[in-house]
Amino acid sequence: MRAVDIIRKKRDAAELSREEIEFLISGATHDHIPDYQLAAFLMAVVWRGMTRAELNALTESMLHSGSVLDWSDLPAAKVDKHSTGGVGDKTSLILAPIVAAAGLYVPMISGRGLGHTGGTLDKLEAIPGFNVHLKLAEFRRVLKQARCALIGQTPEIAPADKKLYALRDVTATVESPYLITASIMSKKMAEGIDALVLDVKTGDGAFMKKQQDAEYLAELMVETGTRMGKKIVALITDMEQPLGRKVGNALEVEECVEVLHGRGPADLRELSVELSAWMFVLGGRTKSVSEGRDLAAEMIASGRARDTFREVIKLQGGDPKIVDDPGLLPQAKHTARLPAHRAGYVTAIRCEQVGTASMMLGGGREKKEHEVDPAVGLVLEKKIGDAVKAGENLCTIHYNLDARLVPATRLLAESFEIGESAPARTPLVRKIIGAGDFK
Amino acid sequence: MRAVDIIRKKRDAAELSREEIEFLISGATHDHIPDYQLAAFLMAVVWRGMTRAELNALTESMLHSGSVLDWSDLPAAKVDKHSTGGVGDKTSLILAPIVAAAGLYVPMISGRGLGHTGGTLDKLEAIPGFNVHLKLAEFRRVLKQARCALIGQTPEIAPADKKLYALRDVTATVESPYLITASIMSKKMAEGIDALVLDVKTGDGAFMKKQQDAEYLAELMVETGTRMGKKIVALITDMEQPLGRKVGNALEVEECVEVLHGRGPADLRELSVELSAWMFVLGGRTKSVSEGRDLAAEMIASGRARDTFREVIKLQGGDPKIVDDPGLLPQAKHTARLPAHRAGYVTAIRCEQVGTASMMLGGGREKKEHEVDPAVGLVLEKKIGDAVKAGENLCTIHYNLDARLVPATRLLAESFEIGESAPARTPLVRKIIGAGDFK
Repeated sequence: MRAVDIIRKKRDAAELSREEIEFLISGATHDHIPDYQLAAFLMAVVWRGMTRAELNALTESMLHSGSVLDWSDLPAAKVDKHSTGGVGDKTSLILAPIVAAAGLYVPMISGRGLGHTGGTLDKLEAIPGFNVHLKLAEFRRVLKQARCALIGQTPEIAPADKKLYALRDVTATVESPYLITASIMSKKMAEGIDALVLDVKTGDGAFMKKQQDAEYLAELMVETGTRMGKKIVALITDMEQPLGRKVGNALEVEECVEVLHGRGPADLRELSVELSAWMFVLGGRTKSVSEGRDLAAEMIASGRARDTFREVIKLQGGDPKIVDDPGLLPQAKHTARLPAHRAGYVTAIRCEQVGTASMMLGGGREKKEHEVDPAVGLVLEKKIGDAVKAGENLCTIHYNLDARLVPATRLLAESFEIGESAPARTPLVRKIIGAGDFK
Repeated sequence: MRAVDIIRKKRDAAELSREEIEFLISGATHDHIPDYQLAAFLMAVVWRGMTRAELNALTESMLHSGSVLDWSDLPAAKVDKHSTGGVGDKTSLILAPIVAAAGLYVPMISGRGLGHTGGTLDKLEAIPGFNVHLKLAEFRRVLKQARCALIGQTPEIAPADKKLYALRDVTATVESPYLITASIMSKKMAEGIDALVLDVKTGDGAFMKKQQDAEYLAELMVETGTRMGKKIVALITDMEQPLGRKVGNALEVEECVEVLHGRGPADLRELSVELSAWMFVLGGRTKSVSEGRDLAAEMIASGRARDTFREVIKLQGGDPKIVDDPGLLPQAKHTARLPAHRAGYVTAIRCEQVGTASMMLGGGREKKEHEVDPAVGLVLEKKIGDAVKAGENLCTIHYNLDARLVPATRLLAESFEIGESAPARTPLVRKIIGAGDFK
C-alpha cells in the first residue's frame, strides 16, 4: 500500500477502504508517512469530503492510535460535554461541578483557545495554582474523589489527532466537517465516556457561521458517536453575541462562580443548566430533560455544585477560596469604558470581533505558542436588545498594557450596532439533534 | 504574508496575487516554506485550478527561481521541442540533428522516463559513453559547435520546479494542467530559446487520455509561452499505439538511426519531419511548414543530420559509430515472441500497457530512484490495421532476466486486440494549436 495511491484515490473522489485509512493514520502516528503526504491528503478530504464509512474508519483509527481510558471500576455513568467553541463560552466550569455533584462522573479533557475563541484550559489556569497537566494516574485519582477532573490532552490520547491537528492548523485544512468530527470524536471517545453532549455553536462568533453548517457537523458527530455505541445529543446554540457578559480568562471564572452562586447572567445560567440536564438524561441520572433542569438548579441552590468545584480545584492544586472570593483571581491593572455614540437599542454585537479584541488585550493567542494574560478581558455592560443612552458604557475593558488598549477599543467600538428599536429575541438553543432516542 | 493564508485563499477559490505566488515560490526555492504547506497548496490548485494571471505569475516565478540561459552570441534562432511523453516517443533524437544540421540551434534539456513513458535522457544513455550531465559551460561549447546539445536538468535551471515536481510526484498532484504548464514552460523558457514546438500526446499511452484535456493543456502552454514573448505551436498527436515499432532505450536509439538513414517506420518519420518543419517555421528558417518538411527530408537524404548526430554524440563523450553500426548499442541476451491467438486485423494496442511491459522488463522505472536496463524492450511486429495470421508474431520481446519475461508477456498478450476487419486509419497529427500566427 502506498500513501500516494490513497491520496490519488481521495483526490478522484473514490471511497477509501478501512484498511487504506488505517494505513494512513498508523503512518501518521508512527511518522512513517511524511507530513507533506498527510497535508495533501487532508486538502483532498476538504475538497471531496468523506462517506460515512470513511468517517467511521477515520474516527476509529484515530481513537485507537492511542489509549482509551477505562473507568469501569467507577460506579456511575461517565459523561462529558464538548463545545465547538465560542466567545465567553465557559459552561464547562459550571456544568462539570453540577453534574459531578449529582453523582455522575465527568472526565473532561479540554483544549486551549486559539484566535477569537477561548479555551477551557486557559480559563482553569487563571485560578491560582490550578494544574491542568495531570498524569493519567492523577487524573484517575481526582476523578474518583471529586467525580470530575479537568485536564489538557495527554500524549496517550489520540496521538494521531495531535499530529493531524497541528498539520491542519498550518495547511488551511481545519474547516472540514469530516476532519472536525474525527478529531473531536476520537478524543472524546478516548476519554472512556458513556455519553456526550455536544454544544455546536453557530453565528458570528462561532466556527460555523451558518446554522446549516453547524447542523451538518452536529449530525455527523451524533451519527459517528452513536455508531460507536455511545449516547450522543447535539444542541445547536446561538453565538451571535458572547455567552454571558464576561470575556477573558479570570473574568470568565468569576462569572462561572457567580452562576454557581445562583447569580450571573441568564443566558449563561440557562445554557449551563440545559447542557447539564442533557448530561443527566444521557447518563441515566434523570428520566427527562425537565427533571434534569430541576436537578441542576438544585445542585446550584444547595451549594453542592460549589462544594464540588472547590474540591476539584483543591485536588488539582488550585486555590479553592476563589469560589467565595473571586477577588483572589488575577486582576488587570486598569479599566476603560466604551461609551455609546448614540442612544437606542443594541441590535447586534459582532461576536468574533469581541473575541478578537479580548485576544488583542492579551486574553487569547493568535498563535499556539503565545502566552495568555489571565487578568485581561471585557465585561459587556449591554447586550443585544438592551436600551442604551448616548455616552453610556457599552463595555468595560480590563487591560494591563496601554499599547493594547487602543486597537482593542477600536475593534470593540465597531462591534456594537445601535438601532432605533430592540430586535426580536432569538432562542439560545436553536435546535437539538439526536434527541429522538432520549426524549 | 503567511503561507497558510495563501493556501486558504486558493482553497476558497479566490484569485492569488502575483506577490502571493512569488512568496510561495521563493519560499519553496529557499526552503523557507515547509513541504507540507506546499503540498496542501498543490492539492488546492489541483482542486480549484488557476486563472491565466495566476498561471502567468506561477510560471514566471518558477522560471526566475534559477538562471535563464543567454545565447545571444549565437548567430541563429534557438528552438526546441517538448513532448508531454508517450510510449516509443523518440523524436527528439531525430529532430535535434535535423534542425541543427539546417542551421538553427537546439539547446535541449530533457528528463527521464517514469512509469510507462520513456525519457530522452535514458535513451541517450543507451549510447555507450554518452554523458547527459554536462555543466553549463560544456553545454555551451557543444551547442556552439554542433548546434545541438542534449542534457539533463541542471541545478541552475528552475530549482523551484525541481522541488515542486518531486513533491507533486508523491502527493498525487501531478495531474493539473496548470501545474504541468508552469513546470514545462518554466524549464523550457529557462533554456533561453526563441521558439518552442510542443508535442502534446493524447490517447491510451499518453498522460492526457482525452483529446479535450490535451487540447486544454496545449492552449494553456501556448498562451503562457506567447505571453512571455516566445513563438509557440502545439501539435496534438496520437498516442493510441506506440510511436514507431521499437520501445526500450537502445532499441529506440536504433530506430532513430534508421530514420536518420532514410528508413524506419512511417509514423515516426512523419512526426519527426512534421515537428522539425514547425521548428524551422518558428525559428524563421523556412517560410512555410511544407518548405520545412522538404528541408527536413533533405537533411536526412543528404546525410547531414547523421553527421550532426555523430558530432553531438562525440562531443558528449559517446561512441559515434553507433550511427552506422547500431549493433554496438547494448543488446539483450534473449528474445521471445508473442504469437497471435487468432487471425484477423490488429484493431487496438493498449499503449499504456505496452509501456508498462517495457518498464517491467527493466526498460523503465517505477520509481525515480530505480536504474534502467538499456538493452531490454519490445519490437512491435504488427501495428494497428495490420493483418495477422493465427500464431504469427505480434511482438518480439528483448529481455535479460527470465523472471521479468513472464509478467511482461502476460501484459503484452492482453494489449493486442484482434478483430475481423481493419479499423479506419486515424491521423497522427490530430490538431495544431497556436498555428494561426505562423501559417
